[in-house]
Amino acid sequence: MKEVRAAVVMIGNELLSGRTQETNFKEIAQAFAQKGVTICEGRILADDEDAIVAVVRKMSAAYDYVVTTGGIGPTHDDITSSCLAKAFNAPLILHEEAHQLLRTHYGARLNEARLKMAHIPQGATLIDNPVSLAPGFRIRNVFVLAGVPVIMKAMLPYVLRDITGGDIKAVVTISAELAEGELAEGLAMVAKTFPRVEIGSYPWFKSTSLGVHLVLRSFDKKELKKCEDEIHALIKCIELS
Amino acid sequence: MKEVRAAVVMIGNELLSGRTQETNFKEIAQAFAQKGVTICEGRILADDEDAIVAVVRKMSAAYDYVVTTGGIGPTHDDITSSCLAKAFNAPLILHEEAHQLLRTHYGARLNEARLKMAHIPQGATLIDNPVSLAPGFRIRNVFVLAGVPVIMKAMLPYVLRDITGGDIKAVVTISAELAEGELAEGLAMVAKTFPRVEIGSYPWFKSTSLGVHLVLRSFDKKELKKCEDEIHALIKCIELS
Repeated sequence: MKEVRAAVVMIGNELLSGRTQETNFKEIAQAFAQKGVTICEGRILADDEDAIVAVVRKMSAAYDYVVTTGGIGPTHDDITSSCLAKAFNAPLILHEEAHQLLRTHYGARLNEARLKMAHIPQGATLIDNPVSLAPGFRIRNVFVLAGVPVIMKAMLPYVLRDITGGDIKAVVTISAELAEGELAEGLAMVAKTFPRVEIGSYPWFKSTSLGVHLVLRSFDKKELKKCEDEIHALIKCIELS
Repeated sequence: MKEVRAAVVMIGNELLSGRTQETNFKEIAQAFAQKGVTICEGRILADDEDAIVAVVRKMSAAYDYVVTTGGIGPTHDDITSSCLAKAFNAPLILHEEAHQLLRTHYGARLNEARLKMAHIPQGATLIDNPVSLAPGFRIRNVFVLAGVPVIMKAMLPYVLRDITGGDIKAVVTISAELAEGELAEGLAMVAKTFPRVEIGSYPWFKSTSLGVHLVLRSFDKKELKKCEDEIHALIKCIELS
């Protein structure tokens, strides 16, 4: 069983101020899960050089892959590329291919600020940006993507092609219109019986009803099936009592 | 000028798997901003004791306030309360008031699992849960809230009453149908002229148009106004050129 682990670092004051609803994390987590990569943690950071440099170094050392989002545009508050250069002690250089891309697109409108988007850490490889051109990049095990969701989403297939996934967990969801508290004791016993099945219990509440979604995940499909059967039996038992 | 700083720790495998879109962070960030509290970082963590204990300790020491969401229900995967007890070396005790609350509500249906929700770290004070009863709690500078958004939202007013905010940043948003790259150089100069104004630049892209929202934040309203005027002049200048 091969488990591949990753972290996501979301960069931007607009997230921390509550101005912008973060949505990239879920997108990345779902896509990575399909490739057999488990997201183990997420970090939301301000546009703060010290914090970004420290966290990227730490995450890069701790996980197989890291994805960062945000901060690669042309403005003064876009500092991710220079932070990545600093994190890996690589000079920030004008990347010839990126330069050519921007030159072709902008022509005479290629100013100093836009040129900033062609500067990436030495040794990094480009990630295509089919939406607004300015590329992301990969350096070591870190993928540096845009923060604007439509651009992030367009860059993600490149990342998925480039990573080596592990085994994929099978997932089963069981829903019941039961209070979580009615199920919890039996569920804890089932969880103990199947230590290799991760069981998540997610209650929902509406004005006139409530219920729970149980999400079962495992690398072992047979174990998962047995666990699923036992939970169905547990639910039936509670419903009858 | 008094700045009060906080962090949010979001707990739950359902976030990391991409099953659930996280929305509490934005809600908390907006509410805290209105009270003069700046959210400085966010952490998304799995239902993993070691990680939760370590991060809570670190955040509690680093910030004025910490909010955690998720993991306080009755099931085996709800481990936040015991993690908080461990983080602060406090025993997890049956809280008499919480016990009474659950006893009154559940009567004979108060089982072992539900009783778990009345166990909180010694020295903690309860946070009302008007939706599904099981309380959150405050221990030291950490507020432990539910993960289900409707419950988290119902608990938030209690937190807001209990925290001491700092000065509140004034905010101005300026929008322009201009490419970010056209504005960036002038904007960088304005940012240098007004170091006490934080200027965020957030581009948007639609199929036939694009533009940018500039968000200005400062404790100093006069500086903010001057900065705002200069940016309006910059935009006019670019539009005319």
